[in-house]
Amino acid sequence: MDTIDRIKKVRSCTAALAGSDIKERNNLLLAIAEALQSNFPEIARANQADLEASGNLSPAMRHRLEFNREKLDAAIASIKNVAALPDPAGKVLMREELDKDLLLEKISVPIGVIGMVFEARPDALVQIASLCLKSGNCLVLKGGSEASNTNREIFRTIIDCSRSTFASENWIELLNTRDDVAQMLKAKNLIDLIIPRGSYDFVRYVMQNTSIPVLGHADGLCSMYIDKTANPDIAIACATDAKTNSPGTCNALENLIVHSSIAPFLLPDLAKAMEEKGVELVGDPRCAEIIGCKEATPQDWDTEYLGLKLSIRTVDSIQEAIAFIAQHTSHHTDAIITQDPQAENLFLGMVDSASVYCNCSTRFADGFRYGLGAEVGISTSKIHARGPVGLEGLMTTKYIVRGNGQIAGTYMGPGARKFIHRMLDTNGPSRILTLHTPQLDIPENN
Amino acid sequence: MDTIDRIKKVRSCTAALAGSDIKERNNLLLAIAEALQSNFPEIARANQADLEASGNLSPAMRHRLEFNREKLDAAIASIKNVAALPDPAGKVLMREELDKDLLLEKISVPIGVIGMVFEARPDALVQIASLCLKSGNCLVLKGGSEASNTNREIFRTIIDCSRSTFASENWIELLNTRDDVAQMLKAKNLIDLIIPRGSYDFVRYVMQNTSIPVLGHADGLCSMYIDKTANPDIAIACATDAKTNSPGTCNALENLIVHSSIAPFLLPDLAKAMEEKGVELVGDPRCAEIIGCKEATPQDWDTEYLGLKLSIRTVDSIQEAIAFIAQHTSHHTDAIITQDPQAENLFLGMVDSASVYCNCSTRFADGFRYGLGAEVGISTSKIHARGPVGLEGLMTTKYIVRGNGQIAGTYMGPGARKFIHRMLDTNGPSRILTLHTPQLDIPENN
Repeated sequence: MDTIDRIKKVRSCTAALAGSDIKERNNLLLAIAEALQSNFPEIARANQADLEASGNLSPAMRHRLEFNREKLDAAIASIKNVAALPDPAGKVLMREELDKDLLLEKISVPIGVIGMVFEARPDALVQIASLCLKSGNCLVLKGGSEASNTNREIFRTIIDCSRSTFASENWIELLNTRDDVAQMLKAKNLIDLIIPRGSYDFVRYVMQNTSIPVLGHADGLCSMYIDKTANPDIAIACATDAKTNSPGTCNALENLIVHSSIAPFLLPDLAKAMEEKGVELVGDPRCAEIIGCKEATPQDWDTEYLGLKLSIRTVDSIQEAIAFIAQHTSHHTDAIITQDPQAENLFLGMVDSASVYCNCSTRFADGFRYGLGAEVGISTSKIHARGPVGLEGLMTTKYIVRGNGQIAGTYMGPGARKFIHRMLDTNGPSRILTLHTPQLDIPENN
Repeated sequence: MDTIDRIKKVRSCTAALAGSDIKERNNLLLAIAEALQSNFPEIARANQADLEASGNLSPAMRHRLEFNREKLDAAIASIKNVAALPDPAGKVLMREELDKDLLLEKISVPIGVIGMVFEARPDALVQIASLCLKSGNCLVLKGGSEASNTNREIFRTIIDCSRSTFASENWIELLNTRDDVAQMLKAKNLIDLIIPRGSYDFVRYVMQNTSIPVLGHADGLCSMYIDKTANPDIAIACATDAKTNSPGTCNALENLIVHSSIAPFLLPDLAKAMEEKGVELVGDPRCAEIIGCKEATPQDWDTEYLGLKLSIRTVDSIQEAIAFIAQHTSHHTDAIITQDPQAENLFLGMVDSASVYCNCSTRFADGFRYGLGAEVGISTSKIHARGPVGLEGLMTTKYIVRGNGQIAGTYMGPGARKFIHRMLDTNGPSRILTLHTPQLDIPENN
């Protein structure tokens, strides 16, 4: 079967997933968790083969590729966590009486087919598969070739569990080759949303080579502005945490901007705190003069170091700071440290990024820290979902209307009947649609 | 100035629009309404020039191109209606206590720059400009060349009003040439969302030639399924209205599907009602045998007639009807006529379209009929907005967090502090951000 046919086979399962009961989906999630546990010896053997085939790996790469008992336990805990979340489908988002006996509801429904392309980490496969299953979406996956044995074994475990259920073995497909990725990115009418996970270059490649919507972010160039009224303790604590708590992540700090009137007092202590954590500092001439660091190159202000290096810039006004951020941010997360409510307001209002903070570390930009229950990804797109994205990023909406014979002609022309357009509360399940009940079992020959 | 520089000039206004007060935006809307009124003689003269330059137009084309007093009154009424709507920006969509003194809010904010490409109708320019201004978005327009004089005069009226306001004359730009459209469709980092308005081929061209998200729909191939338990009066009234109330619109009926057990009793009366309205009928062999119509060709089931022609298909089960719809629908609007709650449920649950109806005409799929206040467009995309789209289709979201020095390190590792993650009600304005107040006036040299 060629790649497009394999994707079509997945597409043909969308109605079965969308029409399934949340209990069925949760049961399948728990069955998968159990099967991963019992099938662990084979998964570990496959993982061993991948590790051996990869030759000399850096410790970081080895850590990403490894699927050991610790990773298994985390994967199983994450599946159970997802199973315990409320059903994201069938939520009533709007309910309106258009007219007597003409009821409109807008409800959440799965998007359809998600395409996931990811590098190395086999645990990403488990995570995205459980999020898609929970939300009633089908899934086409392409993992990194280094992890191909591990991915195949995990995938086999999932379809073995799915085979005799509502989902069948066709709701999920694992593709293997580089050419498969090209085919996925072109499958506009078969895949509704692409989620890439991997390096900056990898995500950027995906974004630039598909007209399918992409949920994700290529870069995370985050800034922090320390205003002239900043509390120095807060400034140093937040900047140090933002830079050093996990320097390789997308919500780590790269550009620090300091008001010139506080710089002479603040920067020496801040530089000391950073240097104690091993951070290399570069700055504009004024900053370099104060702390004696190297001067930053023009490229530095646009560089996501993803490591222990920080660019520091001085400015003479909050407006200059906001303009500097507008020029260099990747619109992921930017923060201000200030005690002045007017400056706080101006910054939070004017900085156009997915997350904008006052007086805390940029490291809070994360689905779990936001209490979303699960993280599908962090989006720097403004369309569909922005910032840390939970299960709602895998949902779209559908308008449903139930009437008793109403026609449009009645509401037009002379003597037209008027709509009521009364908004009703959105509590409780749909009053029109009873999804996921045995009532749906109308015999095929009906 | 070349096209890209003109688009950049618009982009540079996004902060001014996003940071503006809703009162300022409403005042500018009302000023534009007044100026269109007082400038009408010049607009009418420009429109006359367009009409003369266009030579022999069909009555329909002439009606679209004409900007007469009636169109002016409608345009002014629509601006006033938009001005009276609530502010779509700054709505609190989520509010959560992450921890003590660490408050998260998700608020609605304008998307940024909207790109609108449209054919003929100059009133579309007024409509989209007022929707963008209301929502705090900047706008790049490209209208049809037939209406270039009228568009230019309306555009001049709008920028004359805007010049001495917060928005300046740069928030909106009118482009003119075919090459400008190509440049717009490539301006991925300058334009956030494209809205095309025009013929099927035109919208399709736009969708296929840009990687910028597009809000709209190319085709509206709507279906209605008459179940075996349908009330015949409701079936005939709804089908006739759906086909004939306004056959040239996207929510008109094209494929009628009838259960075989009701077809012999229903189809003769239905055919009579349709033929009285001048509808040409084609059908599958069973249908042709019952009512003596021509047989449909395979292409007919995929044709949006946009006129007085209807394809009729018989099926032996609701499942067959749903499968047929899945194969041929454009996912715009599909309806079932039934008295059976199980069939209703199955249809509403399984048909994957933006609007799905029971016992009413497909013609209700419209922003005004849904009570959205204004219609930005009807989307058949599943991403961002689906179905009739009101002002919320021009909004994105932003997460804002205010703390008092919290760092991520506190919530990690041994002895980690736990998040509270308590959802708060979303009533009232932001508790963090006071947008649109004189407080924002921090002097530039601050």
